This record gives sequence, C-alpha cells and structure tokens, in this order.
Amino acid sequence: MNVDPADGADGADRGDRADAGDTGQRSTEERIMEATFRALLEHGYCDLSIANIAEEFEMSKSSLYYHYDSKDDLLVAFLRFAAKRFEETTLSRPPSDPMADLEHLVEKLLPLEQRAEQREIQTVMSELRSQSVTNAAFREEFSDIDDLLVATIRDIVERGIEDGSFREVDSTRVAEHVVATLNGARAARATTNRETAPAAVRVSLASYLDTTLRGRR
Amino acid sequence: MNVDPADGADGADRGDRADAGDTGQRSTEERIMEATFRALLEHGYCDLSIANIAEEFEMSKSSLYYHYDSKDDLLVAFLRFAAKRFEETTLSRPPSDPMADLEHLVEKLLPLEQRAEQREIQTVMSELRSQSVTNAAFREEFSDIDDLLVATIRDIVERGIEDGSFREVDSTRVAEHVVATLNGARAARATTNRETAPAAVRVSLASYLDTTLRGRR
Repeated sequence: MNVDPADGADGADRGDRADAGDTGQRSTEERIMEATFRALLEHGYCDLSIANIAEEFEMSKSSLYYHYDSKDDLLVAFLRFAAKRFEETTLSRPPSDPMADLEHLVEKLLPLEQRAEQREIQTVMSELRSQSVTNAAFREEFSDIDDLLVATIRDIVERGIEDGSFREVDSTRVAEHVVATLNGARAARATTNRETAPAAVRVSLASYLDTTLRGRR
Repeated sequence: MNVDPADGADGADRGDRADAGDTGQRSTEERIMEATFRALLEHGYCDLSIANIAEEFEMSKSSLYYHYDSKDDLLVAFLRFAAKRFEETTLSRPPSDPMADLEHLVEKLLPLEQRAEQREIQTVMSELRSQSVTNAAFREEFSDIDDLLVATIRDIVERGIEDGSFREVDSTRVAEHVVATLNGARAARATTNRETAPAAVRVSLASYLDTTLRGRR
C-alpha cells in the first residue's frame, strides 16, 4: 500500500506492523480505505458515492454495502482508520528530550516542504473536516483527533516540567495554543495560495515554545 | 436585511451605509446574497443549486442565471460581498491604542460567546473555505481575506512599534501567528465539539501578545 491515510499529518515511514493472525481481514480493510482515499481525491466529497469507491477497487458495490451502510458510514471508518495510523506512526514514539519531541511533532504536522502524498492527504482530510460543520458523526471523529493531539502535546509539556527543562506553565493551555496554530497554518496551506504563511508560523511557533516553556526571548 | 455575511467574523452593528445613488442595484445584490446565505445554510454546498437559491428569493432561476453564470460564480460573488462587509465593519475602524485594537479584533474573530447568527455565518464560511481545497476561484478569495487580515494586524503592530508601546518585532511574523491561531481556533469551534478550546486559545493568545509585543510574562 503506497498511501497511508495518516501520512499527510505524518510523513514517517511506517514500520512493518503486519500481524500474521489477521492479515486477511486487515488487508481487505486497508484496500477499502485505499480505494476510499483515491475516490475522495478524484471526485471530492460532494460527488463521492459508494459506486465510485467500488470502481477504485475490485469489489462490487453490493459487497461494499455489506461492510458499510452508506457513504458517510464508510467515511467515518476511513477517519478512524486514518486517526489510528496517525496515532501509531506520529504520536506514539519513544520519549526523548521534551523540546525535541515537540519540534518533531511540529515538523510532522506542518512540514516546511510538503511532499505530494502529504498534500493529497491534507486535501482529503480538509474536505472531510469541513463536512463536520454539519455532520455530527464526522464531528465526533475530528474532536477525537484534536483531543488526542492536545493530550499528546500536553503530556510532552508536563514531562518537560517534571524533568526541569520547562517552566511551570498551564500545559493544557500551551497545547491548545500549539494545536490551534498548527491547524490554522495547515488550513492556510490547504485553502489559500499564501505560500509563505506556513514558514512564518514555523518560526513564530518555535519562538513561542522557547519563550513560553524556557522563558527565553 | 437581518443577516450580514460578515457578521460571523464581525458581530458589530453596521452603520447606515445607504447610498441614494445606487440603492436599487445594491438592494438587489444584497437580496441575492441574503438568499444565497439562506440556501447555503439550509442545503449545504454539495446540494446547493441556483434553483434552491432562487427559492429563497422572489427571483426566477433564469434571472439569477442572467446575473451569474453558475452556482460557483454566484458563490465567488458572495465571498467578495462578505469580505467587503467584513473589511468595512471590522477592519476599518478609527485607530485607537494598538493593544486595544488587537484585542478588539481578536474578540470580533473569536468571540468568547458566539451568537446564533455568528454561528450561522461561520458554518457557511467554513463550508466554502473547505471547497477552496479544490476550487481555484474560491481559493483566491480566501487568500485575499487572509491577506487582508494579516495586513491589518501587521499595520496595528507597526503602529505600536512606532508609538513606542510595542517592542521591535517582526510584524509580519506576529500577524501570521495571530491569524493562524485564530483560524485554527475558529475551525475547532466550527468542526469539533471541543467547547473549551476557544476560551483556552483566547487566554494563550492574550499572553502571547503581551509577551511578544510588550516583553511581559
């Protein structure tokens, strides 16, 4: 599988997580998710249908309906799949120096140079995120994704406070600030031609973290 | 007209800008924009058509087509209309104390309490913004809106540097940071159930501005 639905937010090469016990089932799910991703990229959310997802795949429309009740049901599964990948590849790595861990996460979420696949993933995720304005099931998924991101950053900040490398700050507030800033800069990249914005935000965010967490300026 | 397309980002009462010279024409445009807003809110972007915009209005489908070539053409006009309102009501106010001006803008863009109309506007704008992932014409409009916002904040920061109330900072970088953070927190409100996020970001942003611009912490 070439495309990892979490790759846009990630960019890491996944290790081999094949599990001999459920290879068959996982592989079907993975192939459906891959087909969903391709169909979303090609048709966009509005024109997406179970039929054009099936076209990306050697599966009939009726067997896709056997697995998923509707297009939105399949897309909720896609979001969960992408979130799980994102958690496994980007958020769960062995703890290192807290500032280095924060910098790693910032680079994964807002890379200075975006690869083609990362752009594709961001296209798809931005389209689905916007649907959660009116779709409660999608909204739940994006709430979970952002909650997880905030919790991950908060935990790193708390680790830094405990080991004495960071000042005693409100870790949740810092985490919310970082996630809002990253999400806003990611949206600028996905929805505008403001090409210098992400790089400016990378610099300002590094300076924010340094000032807030280490009291430098 | 009850609904001001810029109101979600704004919340200010508009002054009376009626111009006797073009009342008739402006009024038709305003009524089409109002109908477009209502139809978008009711149907969402995917299911929106010139026909259901015409339904919100006493105008025939064919006369709407006389003014606009397509649904997307009308929506580009809607985005320009909303941006102009936003500029007139929120961005162009007489300069006061630079920090007070920044705080005013932050409160307009990310109010602690969001009124029903503000929520409606944000719903519509979030849906359209997501379309600019794949729609070049929309993308131009959102680039202009964010450019304008960054320029407005940059100008306030420069005014503060000139009058000695702010430190000598990179005004563009600070403006990009503020816009990214606000856009990210606005997206959190529009696309997740993370209800405490906007308030946390308001506090962290006030602290960021104080530290960055006045060197306090």
